[in-house]
Amino acid sequence: MKHSEFLITTSKEAPKDEESLNAKLLTRAGFISKVGAGIYSYFPLGLRVLQNVASIVRKEMDAIGGNEVLLPALHPKEYWSKTGRWETLDVLYRIKAKEKREYALGSTHEEIIVPLAKQAVQSYKDLPRYFYQIQTKFRDEPRAKSGLLRGREFLMKDLYSFHAGQDDLDSFYETKVVPAYEKIFKQCGLNAIRTKASGGSFSKYSDEYQVTNDSGEDVIFYCNTCGFALNREIIEDEQHCLKCRGRLEKLIASEVGNIFKLGTKYSKPFQLTYQDHKGEKQDVLMGCYGIGVSRLMGVIAEIHNDKKGLVWPESVAPFRVHMLKLTTDEKRHATNPDDVYHELMKHGIDVLYDDRNDVSAGAKLMEADLIGMPLRIVMSDRTLKEDRLEIKQRSGENTWLYDTKATIKILTSDNLKKLLPN
Amino acid sequence: MKHSEFLITTSKEAPKDEESLNAKLLTRAGFISKVGAGIYSYFPLGLRVLQNVASIVRKEMDAIGGNEVLLPALHPKEYWSKTGRWETLDVLYRIKAKEKREYALGSTHEEIIVPLAKQAVQSYKDLPRYFYQIQTKFRDEPRAKSGLLRGREFLMKDLYSFHAGQDDLDSFYETKVVPAYEKIFKQCGLNAIRTKASGGSFSKYSDEYQVTNDSGEDVIFYCNTCGFALNREIIEDEQHCLKCRGRLEKLIASEVGNIFKLGTKYSKPFQLTYQDHKGEKQDVLMGCYGIGVSRLMGVIAEIHNDKKGLVWPESVAPFRVHMLKLTTDEKRHATNPDDVYHELMKHGIDVLYDDRNDVSAGAKLMEADLIGMPLRIVMSDRTLKEDRLEIKQRSGENTWLYDTKATIKILTSDNLKKLLPN
Repeated sequence: MKHSEFLITTSKEAPKDEESLNAKLLTRAGFISKVGAGIYSYFPLGLRVLQNVASIVRKEMDAIGGNEVLLPALHPKEYWSKTGRWETLDVLYRIKAKEKREYALGSTHEEIIVPLAKQAVQSYKDLPRYFYQIQTKFRDEPRAKSGLLRGREFLMKDLYSFHAGQDDLDSFYETKVVPAYEKIFKQCGLNAIRTKASGGSFSKYSDEYQVTNDSGEDVIFYCNTCGFALNREIIEDEQHCLKCRGRLEKLIASEVGNIFKLGTKYSKPFQLTYQDHKGEKQDVLMGCYGIGVSRLMGVIAEIHNDKKGLVWPESVAPFRVHMLKLTTDEKRHATNPDDVYHELMKHGIDVLYDDRNDVSAGAKLMEADLIGMPLRIVMSDRTLKEDRLEIKQRSGENTWLYDTKATIKILTSDNLKKLLPN
Repeated sequence: MKHSEFLITTSKEAPKDEESLNAKLLTRAGFISKVGAGIYSYFPLGLRVLQNVASIVRKEMDAIGGNEVLLPALHPKEYWSKTGRWETLDVLYRIKAKEKREYALGSTHEEIIVPLAKQAVQSYKDLPRYFYQIQTKFRDEPRAKSGLLRGREFLMKDLYSFHAGQDDLDSFYETKVVPAYEKIFKQCGLNAIRTKASGGSFSKYSDEYQVTNDSGEDVIFYCNTCGFALNREIIEDEQHCLKCRGRLEKLIASEVGNIFKLGTKYSKPFQLTYQDHKGEKQDVLMGCYGIGVSRLMGVIAEIHNDKKGLVWPESVAPFRVHMLKLTTDEKRHATNPDDVYHELMKHGIDVLYDDRNDVSAGAKLMEADLIGMPLRIVMSDRTLKEDRLEIKQRSGENTWLYDTKATIKILTSDNLKKLLPN
């Protein structure tokens, strides 16, 4: 993609109305733009990150047998009245529409997925089932000052599982969802700590995935000895690990995912039942499993940055390569930057090409650091006269000079790390 | 994808609470499920169609230089007050939230995209710009009885263009958007009629793309002689074509897209200006260009069906191939249906495999016709004993027998039509 044809609006100053690091960085670098507290627009760069995170999540959900669906955001009141949450859920946006119709804006989707599952589940033979969606949620958060970490509108993946028995639910939870979640966070470049949290009415505990960062809104207690962690909400006076008696460390963190055994809490009010082997009606057991997709993007920004700007992990970066033309006099060189760009595109390399002529070399380099693509290629008069390109990894300080052909070979290689000297 | 691992819930009877053909068919075939009037959930089959339509649209928007963004659905009231539409737009959902905050739910996005464009546009050098999104819209429609053709919540592509002059706007409109729209509708298997409609305050006419179908809510007048068409709203008493004086035919149709020159209608209230060559401030000119993505899916269903069910065009079908195992005694044959499935998957063929053992051959065949994949492969005792597979195009009546290897070759060929005899 040529910079001249792709909207990138960066700013030297941090926005005045943002407190969190992720919002400051992502706004300055032209990834997001604030519309209201907890409400953001995504610029093309930001949308690419969001889509990349969503793709990582989608792939792992498909791999554990999830069927992707899409549920609406507009929920007629009667669904929420059935579980009693129309009255009790504090963060629910409620809408009064024409002809006395009333709606909730979906802040979660148990009330919608359970009636849908009723259409698919009659017998034990129809179980288990796993439905997920990647969809926009709305929550009337009292505070929304943490950028993408706590939105009033945000993108979420919610998976719901339906089971004929507790063992099947337990097994799916532990042997399918837990490994899938660990894979997802790892691919996003995050070290997410599995943290015991309150389990609500059907299970003693739930599990949260927490990533420590300074803008976090959760407090967890983490055992440095065995890795066990607890959310503050369930810790008692003890300052020692429940598992190994090691000392607990207090950490500020953001919840990037949670997994929860719902039991029959939502199947009961909607009478979601199945016929067992004996032909008897039983309540379906459920689990629910969330990942904040836009929040993940915010947490990645919180973690992967330095004083110059963002440092995207390759898995979620908007482009893998940022190529900068730092000459305005390319005609005097044998190698033409445009040709290199087209050659890279031909090889399927996801490259952002700063082809602008009216921006100084210094400004281009600063902007490249700010927006943080994993690899930078510089084509200056100095390199071009030797038919060479300079490669630099955003996460390090070293640079390497390669000739044009070798560069393309390096970039198309699966084994980039071997080819780039350390 | 194995049927046993993929949710498909079909029904023999049409839903009682639906009037339109698209809603009846898509519900019976397990593509969508009604949550409320004008509000639907998408089952996995339906979501795949929606995603395929969105991909076709996205590709053509990218091809004309569109930059994809994502704008929120939750719009603080002040944006809509600025244009006066908070008070006047009848279909706007309005939300009263905590601490006296008020929001509109986005029914269109001029009020959000213009302030965003202000961040990107200062000088004539920053123009033109084209931003689009594929995003959920909300409209408090008084009537919502036409399935996916008129939703209270629906998926839309909205493109906004920003120009320094009328010529540039006119040229983008006519030489970029019009051809792109024609490509999109053609790829979706639709014959969309470009239809003159009312142009609002800045242009005498706008253009709508109308597809004739029985559930349509628009009336257009179409000239069979020259192809010129007018929306009823702008026709006067004349019954003859404005262009060639041919006779006009009255047709029932659905609007699948509209393109509109906005001029300075929305740039003025937000003071979206640019500095021209002389350094003087000028108002930016705008165009807006919509396509109803979920409505397109509904219109395709209205058009592409027969008495047995849906007949999806290959471009948007959830799967290209539906493979039915009609034997429960596969062990006595040399060819194992599971092996054929794995072989097809290995070759990257998008296949739905009905591997169920507890469903009769008749029921499987009826269901395959109802859900309407373009190609059907049947593996019965009769075909398997000869190491053959039966291929049938959903859109025709003929069937062909090929050996397994030839089938794979046919399906992986780009030139399917040449290989399948007529």
